[in-house]
Amino acid sequence: MADQSAFAQRGSTEEIEEGRTLAPKFDADGLVTCVTTDAASGEVLMVAHMNAEALARTIESGDAWYYSRSRKRLWRKGEESGHIQRVVEMRIDCDQDAVWIKVAQAGPGACHTGRRSCFYRVVPVGAGQALTLEFRDGDKAFDPQAVYRRNGEPPGA
Amino acid sequence: MADQSAFAQRGSTEEIEEGRTLAPKFDADGLVTCVTTDAASGEVLMVAHMNAEALARTIESGDAWYYSRSRKRLWRKGEESGHIQRVVEMRIDCDQDAVWIKVAQAGPGACHTGRRSCFYRVVPVGAGQALTLEFRDGDKAFDPQAVYRRNGEPPGA
Repeated sequence: MADQSAFAQRGSTEEIEEGRTLAPKFDADGLVTCVTTDAASGEVLMVAHMNAEALARTIESGDAWYYSRSRKRLWRKGEESGHIQRVVEMRIDCDQDAVWIKVAQAGPGACHTGRRSCFYRVVPVGAGQALTLEFRDGDKAFDPQAVYRRNGEPPGA
Repeated sequence: MADQSAFAQRGSTEEIEEGRTLAPKFDADGLVTCVTTDAASGEVLMVAHMNAEALARTIESGDAWYYSRSRKRLWRKGEESGHIQRVVEMRIDCDQDAVWIKVAQAGPGACHTGRRSCFYRVVPVGAGQALTLEFRDGDKAFDPQAVYRRNGEPPGA
C-alpha cells in the first residue's frame, strides 16, 4: 500500500468537514474515489481511483494520476494514449474520501473504448421500463486499437 | 449482501462495453460507485455507493437510493431531510462498475453539512503549493441540525 504519511492524519469530524487540512480517508485498499469531469463542458468523463501516491503526484504535477485496481499499479492518464488530463481544479468532499477533478482533456477522449466519456449509455429509469441500455454520445472519437498498443484489459479498470 | 440476480450476469468484455444489457460489476462489498450531479447546473453534488437493491430501487422508482457503508443499510436520499433526488437521467460507464445520475435536487442542498454540494473545498494543485484547502461555494444553504434529527455520523458516509 502506498505511503499515506504525505497527508495529515484524520482528526475530529469537525476538523475533517470544516477544516482547511487535507486528510483523505483512504479505504481498506488504500484508495479514494476520483470523479473526473471536463472543465469546459462539465461532462463526467470517468470515475477512477487514486492511492496516496497517485493523489500526491496529481497535486504536485497538475497531471491526473490514478491507481489501477486490476493492474495494481500507478498510472498516469495518457501515458500510453497521449490523452493526458491537466487538472484545472481539484475539490475534496465533506468526509474527504472522494475527490473531484475538473480537467482539460488532451486528445479526442478519455475512454479506452474510443469515446470522449466512459458514460456513453443511458439506463432507462422508471417503473416498468425495459432494462435495455441506450447509446448516447456514443460515437467513437478515436480508434482504440490504433491508440493503445496493449490489448485486452481496459487501462482504466 | 443484496441480491444481485435482478441484473444480468457479466458476459465478455465486448458484451459489457458495447452491449445493451445492464450487467453491473459489484465490488467485493457488493457495491458500485455513484456520481450524482445536478441536472440543471452540472455540478457534482456527491459521490456515494449503491448495492444491487439500491440500484434496482433507483431504476424502478426514479428516486435516488444509496447504500451507506458506515450504517450498513439502504438509504433513500432525503428520507430524513426531505431533500430527495429525482433522477433525470442515469448512465453507466464502460466496464459497468460506476453509474452517473443527473438529478433534480429537492430542497436547498445535498450535503449533510448544510451545503448544496459535498465538494465545497478546493485542493490547491501545482508544485510547491501549500496544502491548505480553500472554501469555495461553501456557504451553508440550510442548518443541518434543524434538518437532521440524528446527530453525529454523516448520512452519506
